[in-house]
Amino acid sequence: MYTRAVQELVDELGRLPGIGPKSAQRIAFHLLMVAKEDALRLAQVITEARQRVSFCVRCFNVAEGELCEVCSDARRDPSVICVVEEPRDIAAVEKTREYGGLYHVLQGSLNPIEGVGPDQLRVRELVGRLGGEVVTEIILCTNPNLEGETTAMYLARLLKPFGIKVTRIASGLPVGGDLEYADELTLGRALEGRREVDA
Amino acid sequence: MYTRAVQELVDELGRLPGIGPKSAQRIAFHLLMVAKEDALRLAQVITEARQRVSFCVRCFNVAEGELCEVCSDARRDPSVICVVEEPRDIAAVEKTREYGGLYHVLQGSLNPIEGVGPDQLRVRELVGRLGGEVVTEIILCTNPNLEGETTAMYLARLLKPFGIKVTRIASGLPVGGDLEYADELTLGRALEGRREVDA
Repeated sequence: MYTRAVQELVDELGRLPGIGPKSAQRIAFHLLMVAKEDALRLAQVITEARQRVSFCVRCFNVAEGELCEVCSDARRDPSVICVVEEPRDIAAVEKTREYGGLYHVLQGSLNPIEGVGPDQLRVRELVGRLGGEVVTEIILCTNPNLEGETTAMYLARLLKPFGIKVTRIASGLPVGGDLEYADELTLGRALEGRREVDA
Repeated sequence: MYTRAVQELVDELGRLPGIGPKSAQRIAFHLLMVAKEDALRLAQVITEARQRVSFCVRCFNVAEGELCEVCSDARRDPSVICVVEEPRDIAAVEKTREYGGLYHVLQGSLNPIEGVGPDQLRVRELVGRLGGEVVTEIILCTNPNLEGETTAMYLARLLKPFGIKVTRIASGLPVGGDLEYADELTLGRALEGRREVDA
């Protein structure tokens, strides 16, 4: 039905995460209908990003040089490493403005069913950093889901012999949330992680 | 926080229809993490599509030559024109395998609030086709929403003097739908459009 060029565009867009066949079609026709320079600009930035962006040799965040923006910032505290699954998680932590240390991107989480073990992640590189850098705390900031928890547990055990403080981010009710709508697992974690109130 | 190339990628992706900031971020990092050739292939097909695809000079469907695939197919019945809003609507009609005529793509629908009048649509070109082609029926296949209905009503009045049969697709309950969950407008239309049962 579609011409070859249109069908290829729909197919390629449909491979993107979270883009179903209907959205792919919609975006494809959008790209055909907008001003030509707008469509070509998207192609251009994709190409440019892939040519310029690689991974930080130290923490595996996205980087345009050898080191990422965080690692090359001398004001960051090198004694704390926050371990995340993906580069985009760094953006989430940075937005809090609560953290001034470095990061380590695992580039995934443990998932035995899909064949992702420690060797598929940047675990060896994390351990490697403990030799060269003076690290006093490692914050395990993987997602609070099955894979993320498994990964955190695995890393906690792996890092124990190094005698470094290893912490895990808190699970609990989201700020502004509602007890009534909280699922029992989250509420259970909130209770488990309760803290004494200084009054 | 992001490097310039990553930020530009997120921004451009965020301009696509139905892609919010979170999805844009997700797709951007996906494009940075997948094999380089996969990311570049997307850029390539976008560029190629914009270079090859233009609009059919007769019906304004997407086309890789002067005429689109439908208009250049001699087996199609040239006496019926199905008027749709967008090229993607043609795909929807074709999938039914119920239609063997030609199309006319308006490239939008009337929307006075957003400044879209008949001159912004391919209305003049539709009227132009009635002189040169032997048309016996025009099917108004615009969306069954406010803009689509307004456009259909406008075209029906505009086409009346030509003495051609002008029809509108039926509104009613979707096949496999449930009376209980139908909104009152749709159910009202279904009642209004009721047909005698041959038994």
